[in-house]
Amino acid sequence: MMKTFLDNNFLLETSTAQQLYHEQAEGLPIIDYHCHLEPRLVAEDYRFRSITELWLGGDHYKWRAMRTNGVDERLITGDASDWEKFQAWAATVPYAMRNPLYHWTHLELRTAFGINKPLNPETAREIYDETNDRLQHDPNMTARGLMRHYGVELVCTTDDPIDDLRWHKQVREEGFEIRMLPAWRPDKAMSVENTEAFNKYVNRLAEVADLDIKDFQTFADALQRRHDFFHQQGSRLSDHGINEFYAEPYKETEINAIFNAVRQGKDLCDEDVRKFKSHMLYLFACQDCEAGWTQQFHYGAMRNNNSRMMQALGPDTGYDSIGQSHTALAMSRFLDRLASEGRLTKTILYNLNPADNAMVATMLGNFQDGTVPGKIQWGSGWWFLDQKDGIEQQLNTLSLLGLLSRFVGMLTDSRSFLSYPRHEYFRRILCNLVGRDIEQGEMPYEGYERTRINQMIQDICYYNAKQYFQF
Amino acid sequence: MMKTFLDNNFLLETSTAQQLYHEQAEGLPIIDYHCHLEPRLVAEDYRFRSITELWLGGDHYKWRAMRTNGVDERLITGDASDWEKFQAWAATVPYAMRNPLYHWTHLELRTAFGINKPLNPETAREIYDETNDRLQHDPNMTARGLMRHYGVELVCTTDDPIDDLRWHKQVREEGFEIRMLPAWRPDKAMSVENTEAFNKYVNRLAEVADLDIKDFQTFADALQRRHDFFHQQGSRLSDHGINEFYAEPYKETEINAIFNAVRQGKDLCDEDVRKFKSHMLYLFACQDCEAGWTQQFHYGAMRNNNSRMMQALGPDTGYDSIGQSHTALAMSRFLDRLASEGRLTKTILYNLNPADNAMVATMLGNFQDGTVPGKIQWGSGWWFLDQKDGIEQQLNTLSLLGLLSRFVGMLTDSRSFLSYPRHEYFRRILCNLVGRDIEQGEMPYEGYERTRINQMIQDICYYNAKQYFQF
Amino acid sequence: MMKTFLDNNFLLETSTAQQLYHEQAEGLPIIDYHCHLEPRLVAEDYRFRSITELWLGGDHYKWRAMRTNGVDERLITGDASDWEKFQAWAATVPYAMRNPLYHWTHLELRTAFGINKPLNPETAREIYDETNDRLQHDPNMTARGLMRHYGVELVCTTDDPIDDLRWHKQVREEGFEIRMLPAWRPDKAMSVENTEAFNKYVNRLAEVADLDIKDFQTFADALQRRHDFFHQQGSRLSDHGINEFYAEPYKETEINAIFNAVRQGKDLCDEDVRKFKSHMLYLFACQDCEAGWTQQFHYGAMRNNNSRMMQALGPDTGYDSIGQSHTALAMSRFLDRLASEGRLTKTILYNLNPADNAMVATMLGNFQDGTVPGKIQWGSGWWFLDQKDGIEQQLNTLSLLGLLSRFVGMLTDSRSFLSYPRHEYFRRILCNLVGRDIEQGEMPYEGYERTRINQMIQDICYYNAKQYFQF
Repeated sequence: MMKTFLDNNFLLETSTAQQLYHEQAEGLPIIDYHCHLEPRLVAEDYRFRSITELWLGGDHYKWRAMRTNGVDERLITGDASDWEKFQAWAATVPYAMRNPLYHWTHLELRTAFGINKPLNPETAREIYDETNDRLQHDPNMTARGLMRHYGVELVCTTDDPIDDLRWHKQVREEGFEIRMLPAWRPDKAMSVENTEAFNKYVNRLAEVADLDIKDFQTFADALQRRHDFFHQQGSRLSDHGINEFYAEPYKETEINAIFNAVRQGKDLCDEDVRKFKSHMLYLFACQDCEAGWTQQFHYGAMRNNNSRMMQALGPDTGYDSIGQSHTALAMSRFLDRLASEGRLTKTILYNLNPADNAMVATMLGNFQDGTVPGKIQWGSGWWFLDQKDGIEQQLNTLSLLGLLSRFVGMLTDSRSFLSYPRHEYFRRILCNLVGRDIEQGEMPYEGYERTRINQMIQDICYYNAKQYFQF
Repeated sequence: MMKTFLDNNFLLETSTAQQLYHEQAEGLPIIDYHCHLEPRLVAEDYRFRSITELWLGGDHYKWRAMRTNGVDERLITGDASDWEKFQAWAATVPYAMRNPLYHWTHLELRTAFGINKPLNPETAREIYDETNDRLQHDPNMTARGLMRHYGVELVCTTDDPIDDLRWHKQVREEGFEIRMLPAWRPDKAMSVENTEAFNKYVNRLAEVADLDIKDFQTFADALQRRHDFFHQQGSRLSDHGINEFYAEPYKETEINAIFNAVRQGKDLCDEDVRKFKSHMLYLFACQDCEAGWTQQFHYGAMRNNNSRMMQALGPDTGYDSIGQSHTALAMSRFLDRLASEGRLTKTILYNLNPADNAMVATMLGNFQDGTVPGKIQWGSGWWFLDQKDGIEQQLNTLSLLGLLSRFVGMLTDSRSFLSYPRHEYFRRILCNLVGRDIEQGEMPYEGYERTRINQMIQDICYYNAKQYFQF
Repeated sequence: MMKTFLDNNFLLETSTAQQLYHEQAEGLPIIDYHCHLEPRLVAEDYRFRSITELWLGGDHYKWRAMRTNGVDERLITGDASDWEKFQAWAATVPYAMRNPLYHWTHLELRTAFGINKPLNPETAREIYDETNDRLQHDPNMTARGLMRHYGVELVCTTDDPIDDLRWHKQVREEGFEIRMLPAWRPDKAMSVENTEAFNKYVNRLAEVADLDIKDFQTFADALQRRHDFFHQQGSRLSDHGINEFYAEPYKETEINAIFNAVRQGKDLCDEDVRKFKSHMLYLFACQDCEAGWTQQFHYGAMRNNNSRMMQALGPDTGYDSIGQSHTALAMSRFLDRLASEGRLTKTILYNLNPADNAMVATMLGNFQDGTVPGKIQWGSGWWFLDQKDGIEQQLNTLSLLGLLSRFVGMLTDSRSFLSYPRHEYFRRILCNLVGRDIEQGEMPYEGYERTRINQMIQDICYYNAKQYFQF
C-alpha cells in the first residue's frame, strides 16, 4: 500500500508511531538550544526580500548540492538575480531526491507556506512568486513571525566572547515573548596557531573587557569578565568547535611563556599550540562549571579543504567535510581531569564522523556521576549526520549504549528561520522508532510502561532540555 | 498487528523464524566457552541472599545505567540496604527501555522466576519479595541449580596462571554433571609497564610454579609449567585482554635484557614495553599451539577512564569504554609470524569498536588454512556490542565477509548465573535473520537446502562449538 | 508470504521496486568501466575447457570461502582434477549461504546456463556435466559470446603502461561490436619502495617508450608517451591502487635526487618513498587532466598478509583484507593542490573500509566545481563491499551526503566473463531502495517526479556512465 509523499503521517510507519507523534510530540514547543541565527535579524524582526535570500543566502548544504549538480558558481554565490538562483535551485531539487534537502525543502514549503506541490522546474515560477508574495506582504512572515509560527519557546544563538550582545538585549527589553539567549563560543581565544589573527583578537578582547591584557593571567581575567557578562545576559551554554580534543601535559608556567611568545608575534610550534589549546579547553571548562553552565564540544570537522574557494568565498561556504579522528584518549583525559578535580559540568559531545558513534556513546558513561540525570550527553546528529539515517543511528546507538530516556534531544544548528521543521523531522523519526519497537513486542506499552513511554517521548522532545539546561 | 512484549515469539518476526527457533535452536544445550563466573560459587553451590546480590553485586552495566539515570553512588555501590539498591534499580529500569538491560532484566525474570510483569517502581516490592523468597528457599535456586535450569553443558571460566584451580578440581571430583573448565588468562604476565605489580606477580608465579625465576627463560618455563597444569585440569582455551596487538620487531636477547631490567626495579620505556608484549603474545601463542588449544583475543577497550572512581572502587566498576584502534597491521603481522612458522592455532578475535568490524571480519580469511573449518573465528559481539544491533551486525558482516555456517556462536562473558538467557537472545536474533532471508527469497529452503539451514542453526547454537574446541 | 528463492523479483520487496526494475533498469546495456578481464581471452574469443576453469581458475573470493570451510589447498589451487575442485566447491556452496558468493553462483547458473537448481553435493555432478557440455559445445558460450549474452556495450580493462595493448588493437580491428578499451594503471611506476623491481620496471618502460631514461624528466616523458599511446588506443580512464593517499610537501629537485638514488640501486627511506609517491600521484593526475580522462583511486587494502602463501601462490590469491586508514587529510591535500592549479579532472574515489564511507562521501563535495555533474564520484562498493549490504550502504550514504542522481553506477572489477549478473544484482538493489522509499511516502512518484525517478534509475544504470566518461 503506497503512502502519499509527505502526508500527515510522513515517516510514521506504524499506527503506534502515528499515535505517539500526534498525541505526544507534535504539539510541544521548541527549545532550540544550539543555533546560528543572526540576532540582528530577530531584533529587527527582519523581512526577507525573497525566498532566494531566505533559502539560498547562506545555506552551504544547498550550495554543495548545486555544485554537485553541475550548476555554475555564478548561479550559486555569484551575481545572478534572485530568480536565476532560485531557478537553478529548483532545477537541482529533483536531483536531490533521497538527500535530506529534498525533505527539508518540502517540509518548509508545506509548514511555512502551505505549499504541497513538489518544487521542480515546472513549478518553480509559481512557487517563487507565491513564497515571495507571502514573504513580502504577510505580516507573520518575518523573522519573529516565523519563530512564533513554529512554536519556538527559546533559542540559543552562538556568539563570540567579544560580542556586545546588543541585539539580545534589545530583543529582551522589547519583551519579545520568545527568549533568545546568547551562547559562548570562544574558539578564537584558543586559535593560537595563527599569530596575527590571535593577537588582533586579544587586542579586541582587551578593549571589550576594558582590561589591560599583559600576560596570560590578565587574558584569562578578560575572558572571565566576558563570561560573567554573558551570564548576566542569560547565557547558560558554551560551545567549542575543535578539530580534536587536546589533553597534552603542560605546566602553567609554560602557558604563560607560550602566550607571551605569541604576543611578541612569534609563530608557535605544533607542540606549544597543543599545550595552549589543552589549557584553554580546561580553563573554559572551569569557567562553565563555576557558573553552572553546560559545555558543548563539536569535534571532527575537516574545514576549508578547497583553498581556491576559501580565497574566493571565505569559510562556511560548503567546502568542509568529515575528518578521521583519533581523539578518544584525549577526550577521556580531558574529561577525567575535570572529573578528578570536581570541575566537570554538564557536557554535550558531538562527533561528525559516524564511525565514532560507539566510542562517544560509551564515553558518556565514564563520567556520569549521578548528580544530574544524563549529565554527560551525546549530541543529536550533527551537520552531515542531521538526516534520517544519522538521527536513527544516533538514537539507536544511544539507546543501546546509554539511556535514551535522558536525551536532551534536537537542535537545528541552523542559520535559517525556516529550519524549525527539523524538530518535526526528528520527532517523527523518534516516534517511528519507538512505535516500531512497541508493535514488534520489544517494548511493553500498557499501564505504567505506557505512561512512561509517552512521557519519554515528551521528555526527549521538550522537557528534558527544559530541565537540563535550566535557562 | 501488535506483538505482545517478550512473548514466546519475542524477536521472531516471521513464521519461518519462529519455526527455526522453536524447532532447531530452543532446546539445545549451552556451551558457554567464555565467562567470568566465580568458580568458588559453583564449588559451594552458592545460594544468593537476595536478588540485589545476584543482580547488582557486580554488574557494571546496571551501575552505569543507574549513574546515567541520576542515582547516587550510595545506592549503587555504597552502603545502602539491599532493598534500597533494588528500589533504585527498579526506578531506573523503565528509563532503560531500548537498552539491552531492559530485555535482559525481563528475560531473566521470566526464565528464572516465571515473572512476566515489567519491573518498575510499582512492581518493585512484589518482585523483590518473590525473587528473594525463591532465592532463599527454592532448592533449585542455587549456583548449580541455575546452571542446570538453563541447560548448561559446559562453562569455561577465566583464570590467572597463578590460580590453583582448587574449585575446578572440587567441582570435577564431586561429579557435578555440568563441566566447568578453567581458561588461561595471562594478562598480568605481560603487564610489564607497571614494574612493581609485575614483579610481585613474577614472585608469586615462581612460588606457584615452584621454580626459581632468575631470567626470562625460567620465567617462560614457569609459565609453561602452569600451562601444563591448566591443560591437566581440562583447559583448552586461553584469553588475552589487550589494548591493541603488538608485533614490534625485536631480538630474543633484548627480551631477556628487558626482563632483567624490570626485575631490577627499573621502569621501562614505551618501546621496551611494546617489544616485551610482542614477545609474550608470541610465546603464549606458541604454548597454545603446542597444546592444541584455542586462543582468544579481546582488544580495543579503553579502561579506567575515571581516575577518581578508579581510586574509590577499583577496576571493572563501569568506567571503561570503547577505544579507537589502529591495530590492523600489528594484528596481521602477529598472525602472519605464527602462520609462517606453522604455529598458528585456532584463534578467536574480538573487537570492541564496531568501526573495526569489517577489518576483523576480513582478517580471518588471510589465515584460514583449510585444516579446521572456521579455524580463525570472529568472536560474537563483545561487551558493549552484546545486544541486538551488535549481534545482528556481527552476524551479518560475518555472513557477508566469511562463512556464517562455521561460526562457533554465543558466549555470555558474564559474572552472573542469570546471564544464560543471552544465549536465548542470540538464538532468537540468529533465527530471525535467517528466517527473514528465507521469506524474502534470499535463501532457498527446500530439500537439501532446508536440511542444511536447519543444521546451520543447530551448528551455530551448539555443534560448531562442540566440534571446534574439542573440550 | 514466502518469496521463491532467486525468482524474477529477487531482491525486489515492493511492487514499485519490481516495476522500476523491470521497466527501467532490466533492459539497459552494460558499461563495465572498470574490470580485470584478460584482453587476450576476448581477442581469442576464448572457450573455457570447464566450469572449473571459468569459476575456480582465479577467483580468490571462492578460494577464501573454501579455505574457511576446511578444504585442503590441493583442491583449491593444487593439482586436483577439475572435477575434484568443482566437487570441493559444490560442497562449500551450501556453507556459503548469506555470503554474496551464494547469490552470485546461482545468478550465474541461472542467467548463463538456465540452471535453476541450487548447487550442492547432490546436484554437483549434474551441474558440472551440463555446464561443461555447454561451455564446450554451445557456439555462444565463449568469451565474446558471454559478453554479448549479457548485453555488454563497453568494457575497460586494467593495463600497465608498458603493455603493448595488442589484444585491444586486434579486437578493435576485427570489428567486435562490443568496445574493449584499455585503462591506465601505473602502480608499478610509483612502487619505488622496492628498488630492484622498480629499476627493472623503468628499464622495461624505457624500451617500450623507446626513450633513454636518464633522469626523472625522461622518466616522466616516457610515461607521457605511453599515456599518449593509451589515449590513441581509446583509453579515457586511469586507476591507482594505493595503500593511502600521499601528499607530502617536497621540492621537484628532491624528486630528481630520489629517482637518481633508486636508479643507482639505493634503498630509499620511508620519507623519500612518500615524497616520490606524492609527486607521482600528482604527475599522473596532471596527465589525466590534460587528456580529459577520469582518474580512479582504490585505496585502503592491506595486501599479502600471509607471507607463506605469498611465497607459494603469489599476490591476488585471497590473502588481502581491509586496512585501517588515516588518510583523509592527505586525500584532501592531494585533491586541493590539483583544484588550486585547475588540474583536477573527473575523479572516482573507492574506499575499502566501510568505516570511511561518510568521510569519502563528504570529501566529494569539497571539490565539485559545477563544470561536470557529479565530477567527483564515490565509487560503487569495492571488493569486500561489493555485496547487498555494502551496495545499500554506499547508495544510502551517497544519497544522504551527495546526489545519488549523478552516480555513475556499477562496475564488476572482475576477471570473470560470468560476473555481469553483478550489474543485475546492483540494479535490483537500487530499484528496491528507491521503490521502498516511494511506497513509504518518502519520495513523490507522480507527474514530473515520476518521470525524474524513472530517468534517475536509467541514468544510474547506464546513461550517467555514458555521459560522464565520454568514451
